[in-house]
Amino acid sequence: MTIQGEQIIGRQIARGAEGSIYGVEAATGEKLQPAFGGATQADLERACQLADEAFDPYRALPAERRAAFLEAIAEEILALGDELIERCCAESGLPRGRIEGERGRTMGQLRLFASVLRDGGYLDARVDPPMPERQPLPRVDLRLRNVPIGPVAVFGASNFPLAFSVAGGDTASALAAGCPVVAKAHSAHPGTSELVGRAVLAAAQRCDMPEGVFSLLFDSSRRIGQGLVADHRIKAVGFTGSRGGGTALMKIAASRPEPIPVYAEMSSINPVFLFPQALEARAETIAKGFAASLVLGAGQFCTNPGLVIAVEGPALDRFVRATGEALAALPASVMLTPGIHEAFERGVAQLTGHAGVETVARGQEGGKLRGQAAFFAVDAEGFLADPMLQEEVFGASSLLVRCRDEAEMRRVAERLEGQLTAALHIEAGDHEAVRPLLPLLERKAGRILVNGFGTGVEVGHAMVHGGPFPATADGRSTSVGSKAIERFLRPVCYQDMPDDLLPPALQNANPERLWRRVDGVLTQPSA
Amino acid sequence: MTIQGEQIIGRQIARGAEGSIYGVEAATGEKLQPAFGGATQADLERACQLADEAFDPYRALPAERRAAFLEAIAEEILALGDELIERCCAESGLPRGRIEGERGRTMGQLRLFASVLRDGGYLDARVDPPMPERQPLPRVDLRLRNVPIGPVAVFGASNFPLAFSVAGGDTASALAAGCPVVAKAHSAHPGTSELVGRAVLAAAQRCDMPEGVFSLLFDSSRRIGQGLVADHRIKAVGFTGSRGGGTALMKIAASRPEPIPVYAEMSSINPVFLFPQALEARAETIAKGFAASLVLGAGQFCTNPGLVIAVEGPALDRFVRATGEALAALPASVMLTPGIHEAFERGVAQLTGHAGVETVARGQEGGKLRGQAAFFAVDAEGFLADPMLQEEVFGASSLLVRCRDEAEMRRVAERLEGQLTAALHIEAGDHEAVRPLLPLLERKAGRILVNGFGTGVEVGHAMVHGGPFPATADGRSTSVGSKAIERFLRPVCYQDMPDDLLPPALQNANPERLWRRVDGVLTQPSA
Repeated sequence: MTIQGEQIIGRQIARGAEGSIYGVEAATGEKLQPAFGGATQADLERACQLADEAFDPYRALPAERRAAFLEAIAEEILALGDELIERCCAESGLPRGRIEGERGRTMGQLRLFASVLRDGGYLDARVDPPMPERQPLPRVDLRLRNVPIGPVAVFGASNFPLAFSVAGGDTASALAAGCPVVAKAHSAHPGTSELVGRAVLAAAQRCDMPEGVFSLLFDSSRRIGQGLVADHRIKAVGFTGSRGGGTALMKIAASRPEPIPVYAEMSSINPVFLFPQALEARAETIAKGFAASLVLGAGQFCTNPGLVIAVEGPALDRFVRATGEALAALPASVMLTPGIHEAFERGVAQLTGHAGVETVARGQEGGKLRGQAAFFAVDAEGFLADPMLQEEVFGASSLLVRCRDEAEMRRVAERLEGQLTAALHIEAGDHEAVRPLLPLLERKAGRILVNGFGTGVEVGHAMVHGGPFPATADGRSTSVGSKAIERFLRPVCYQDMPDDLLPPALQNANPERLWRRVDGVLTQPSA
Repeated sequence: MTIQGEQIIGRQIARGAEGSIYGVEAATGEKLQPAFGGATQADLERACQLADEAFDPYRALPAERRAAFLEAIAEEILALGDELIERCCAESGLPRGRIEGERGRTMGQLRLFASVLRDGGYLDARVDPPMPERQPLPRVDLRLRNVPIGPVAVFGASNFPLAFSVAGGDTASALAAGCPVVAKAHSAHPGTSELVGRAVLAAAQRCDMPEGVFSLLFDSSRRIGQGLVADHRIKAVGFTGSRGGGTALMKIAASRPEPIPVYAEMSSINPVFLFPQALEARAETIAKGFAASLVLGAGQFCTNPGLVIAVEGPALDRFVRATGEALAALPASVMLTPGIHEAFERGVAQLTGHAGVETVARGQEGGKLRGQAAFFAVDAEGFLADPMLQEEVFGASSLLVRCRDEAEMRRVAERLEGQLTAALHIEAGDHEAVRPLLPLLERKAGRILVNGFGTGVEVGHAMVHGGPFPATADGRSTSVGSKAIERFLRPVCYQDMPDDLLPPALQNANPERLWRRVDGVLTQPSA
């Protein structure tokens, strides 16, 4: 397979006619060949129309067929081999080990959703049997299952060119739910996007999926992305990116004649709380872990630790010193795009020049397109006085808030916006101090973690990668883990429907052998 | 207990100082005493502040305590006795039998959510055990449960003064979820609202609930309702009412600095499809059922059958004739308010004067404040040409769309907006014709029912009272049945959290004896 600069609309692969987009080698800023053609309005129309037409046949397929399709996508991605890895490394500036790991994660997500389909619990099948003799009125026969919401627009993310892009988490959960996907490639990695798009198409053809179950568009402006969200055939949106980008899509979606849900993952500074006994016992170890988490992937994780909150004192001084030493030993990494590097430099310069903010450590010098890690400090009063200090600086930048006591730590916590994660570093002796903070953190974050950092996001059943606004557009949802399928589902009830017209999930014989809630009680399929 | 014209803010009962609101006797249009004082901005502030302060202590209570609170509310409502029934009948114009039934339903809802709390399935408790030996990286310990979303604003509905008002479905599901409620009384039944509010307060005091778990405000303008939705302490909104009212609240919620979900149930014409064999076999029986459903509660059900779709021919003529006879035998009923009656008259007049729309039957003459049922007909071409014909006329008005064949029935179905319900009248011989329509109806409606009408909404586990926009603001949700608790929940993940800091639902010993998903597999609590 070779990159041709082409997009995918249903079964057609062809170059878009609207302008040209080039990949850029992240490490050098140089153009990569070939040119990619952007989608025209007609391309957008056709992709949405095909998705709409594919919706009913696709969702009607047995769960096993959709599961096999997801597994085939994973296989086809692996079959892209080194071409994918090399192009992805070049476009993202991320090292080979990370991209290989991310490919494994992407395949793992697809397989996880295949297992979710086989389990069937996502359908939330329910049966309330009729009571013909009930007084004063008989009770009807009621059955419920979840159905997919409709075609979904998925926006590729710059910072996860595989795991949160063309065949990433949102695509996997949408396809699992039964929703066709129209993906919009991120301009930071068009070559990677085309390759993965071709893999999805190959899988769709191999598994004989309806045309339109997947399309991939390139966008030479913002018109196609915005047009996708506005299109009446699109029923939900998955997005990972900036707060500005996400809220713009939320506005478009809310002002449609038929508003639709937007799942935008946007902005989080992921507070890290260092408690006294933990600092006392392990200031240097925590600092090492913190520095490693801060520079991981050039700091370009949504869960990057951008804020540290602790009580001032000798133990905190040890932490700061050790962080400085650790950062000095870590090389600066290439950032995803020249634009992201520039924004990072701007954010760091703003903090450096901020009265009341002290630069306490920097990483090794960056040089061209590499982000030099930065660690700043401010006292709690200064932090509380300036909301700008809560703004995410995307990259390896973090701010320490020095508090006078634990009450001040709490006041800082109370002022925080919604977050993806909150981390607590504690020893047994800190538990009583931590306990009253937990309800507050539950209100602020989607994941609370102990003695670790949020940058590792396990893909499982109990993961939540989400959180109150502005971390995401919709804190009721997660974008990682098996629970992510719920964002693309809605319930439908069937009343007094003859058995032969019911979907198999709800038929009397329970042919799919699902666990169902019968009169509210979880009931195992009979043998 | 006597109605004092007072609102409830936390534990305080006092008259609001912002203007005066009077209940109106629906049957006569005459003012009912006493005057109710509207809430001031300070009242709103205080109710929201108390709700915010009550949130953590209230949600921390054991599920059993919240369940007992819900049951106590049901008891206190019953203890209001005849004063409640009489005032509610006077304010709503609805007959005693209906109001007594609605009281039973309201109590049943509260008790259903008590049972949901005791079951614990709503927590969706999940445990992914750690794998310390996993290569290349150990797996962390991950656990997930749902937490309540925060204080909820609940707007009383005019058409269900008990079951969808102060202590109605949204209040019951929000309180069950662990969310304090600030209720806004509907101006159509302030006396009913005060009585029920006092019952909730009595239950809260009897069960020693934190102050602020419930408040009740009156609104002499729209300022208080809009202010509630805009208040930063309110995290979700439950509303049942007009499309205009609901979309206005959606706009306010979407333009907050932190947007929040609005669950607005707004507008539905609930299409009824009559299939040929069913019409042939039972035109007269279906007509009788249809006419009864149409005039039930003066047609003021959200699920009122406002649209009938069928193929023209002698059997349909029989249906029309029989409907006319049935309507002629049914008395006109008092409508909820003079304003609603006026809007109904206006809507009926518009259809009466519409070129292409034929008046095929009217009910008995209405007279003052009573709605005279109306049944209209139009051909499919005319229906498809004018989107206005899809607008809900709130009350006993319905429109028959005469189709040339089943293909035209489908074209009409395709053009429909989102609906709460879709009804199918069929015989065994119609099944093959119905089957291809079902996927379309699943996309359009939250409940599909066979050989019945949507006006009976059973409160159970498999009910969905919701549907795509504009039927509701959020088709992923239901406002009736046990699944309604989900609208007020969001998931939180706990990573490597020491057992003594975990919520009981996720502790190793499983002290609440919950079913949990362990590594994705539903697992019963061990004995």
